[in-house]
Amino acid sequence: MTQPFNLERYLQTTGARINTALDRLIPAATTPPATIHKAMRYSLFAGGKRIRPVLTLAACEAVGGKPAAAMPLACAVECIHTYSLIHDDLPCMDDDDFRRGQPTNHKVFGEGIAVLAGDALLTEAFALAAGDVRYVKELASAAGSRGLIAGQVQDLENENRAATLQEVIATHRNKTGALITAAIRLGAMAGGATPAQLRRLTRYGDDLGLAFQIIDDVLDVTSTKEVMGKSVGADAKNQKSTFPKLLGVEKSRQMAAELIADAHRQLKSFGTRAAPLAAIADFFLTRQH
Amino acid sequence: MTQPFNLERYLQTTGARINTALDRLIPAATTPPATIHKAMRYSLFAGGKRIRPVLTLAACEAVGGKPAAAMPLACAVECIHTYSLIHDDLPCMDDDDFRRGQPTNHKVFGEGIAVLAGDALLTEAFALAAGDVRYVKELASAAGSRGLIAGQVQDLENENRAATLQEVIATHRNKTGALITAAIRLGAMAGGATPAQLRRLTRYGDDLGLAFQIIDDVLDVTSTKEVMGKSVGADAKNQKSTFPKLLGVEKSRQMAAELIADAHRQLKSFGTRAAPLAAIADFFLTRQH
Repeated sequence: MTQPFNLERYLQTTGARINTALDRLIPAATTPPATIHKAMRYSLFAGGKRIRPVLTLAACEAVGGKPAAAMPLACAVECIHTYSLIHDDLPCMDDDDFRRGQPTNHKVFGEGIAVLAGDALLTEAFALAAGDVRYVKELASAAGSRGLIAGQVQDLENENRAATLQEVIATHRNKTGALITAAIRLGAMAGGATPAQLRRLTRYGDDLGLAFQIIDDVLDVTSTKEVMGKSVGADAKNQKSTFPKLLGVEKSRQMAAELIADAHRQLKSFGTRAAPLAAIADFFLTRQH
Repeated sequence: MTQPFNLERYLQTTGARINTALDRLIPAATTPPATIHKAMRYSLFAGGKRIRPVLTLAACEAVGGKPAAAMPLACAVECIHTYSLIHDDLPCMDDDDFRRGQPTNHKVFGEGIAVLAGDALLTEAFALAAGDVRYVKELASAAGSRGLIAGQVQDLENENRAATLQEVIATHRNKTGALITAAIRLGAMAGGATPAQLRRLTRYGDDLGLAFQIIDDVLDVTSTKEVMGKSVGADAKNQKSTFPKLLGVEKSRQMAAELIADAHRQLKSFGTRAAPLAAIADFFLTRQH
């Protein structure tokens, strides 16, 4: 590309579009019972970077589809992501008081409502994906007991024990990777991807998802609460097996870099249409929070 | 009908078929991570009467459909019901230690796994309903923040305050009624119901759902732990507004009887094909646990 792709502007514009769509698609805060809709919206609009729904729209674009076709799916993915954070932050799970610099859902609304707000966002995601049964199947598979939820179970079970590198990779492929890959696949499907395109973008997603978690682990060791907007050092506190603990910080960074290089290779045949996906891959590697 | 319908045998045969289907459709207890699949199956096979999935199959039959067509939907409905019980029993919700005479999910597997087992069953329900987008929409609407979850929120908010009869009815129409009506509608849809048939069965379901909750409240006052297989008197302990509290036991029973009479009127045009639905309506009124 002669002109460098402006990712910051792309994330801003696309993020704003996603926020508008979410605001339109999720019941208003005044819809009875107001408590649940306020709680859902509190976490949904808590300043997330919308990386997953942006990936959905960018994947749709990469195969030549119109982003609008993928917007309900982008919102569905963000609902799943937000539900998983709300439940993950509960005292019986990771027990986090802060998320993105703000008190977590259960600190504001109480644990009962937080459980229900997560349940409601999960349910809403399937209403949003109900444009095609293929979307519903993809989302259920990524979010279910052999995807995202498997990762959360493995994460709970890896606490206070020495997990191997293979186990840590398996956990993160489920916990982070499954939804990131599904976000991309759903966008590609909505854009009319060929089987070969879908295969390449699936591998791009798998690379990205694992790299994301490696960098997350690295930042938990090297960053500060102020930069991250959430507690750091939690992994060490919970005696979790992480990539830096198993490989060291430098080798972890190197592994992430190799994954991102492979992700770029998967995008080659898409040409300039994949510029957003390429820029996001680089951003994953270099992000500071 | 000259020959009385044998409901006990129908429930036994149909219940056994549902158990077989659930066992086939839900991941085996050995599927990794085994913990989550054990926890899902623990509550799913805890001796529930399968009333909701039986209604799905019976509604399919009432409109002349083959029950097998509705089986995945019957299983989806039971997954939603079981997830809602697991989350409802959590310490941050109703805080129940026993359910159907057995320790609740979180007492056996811990709160973290119980939250995730509920999440996984909710997700699995949508995988099972993914035969048609109409099914997914119906299920999401019944289970979502303006259906089942709305009822649970209203239930939490009605604790320790004097709710009116109208509020209690609204709560139960959501908390119990929405899923019972959806169970019936899904079966009818899978059986190829006409719009008029669907309308009548929807009203049958609304009647049944409210009557079910009235009788539940009555039994919480008049029954014992031994008969119910769960703690009784919980409503009084939690200072909940219930039908017996607002209307007295006799008037509550009378209201339930009137609803069941209306339910029977909705079934008239279906003839003998609706014999199971008619018998279930009577069973709702006369059950002791």
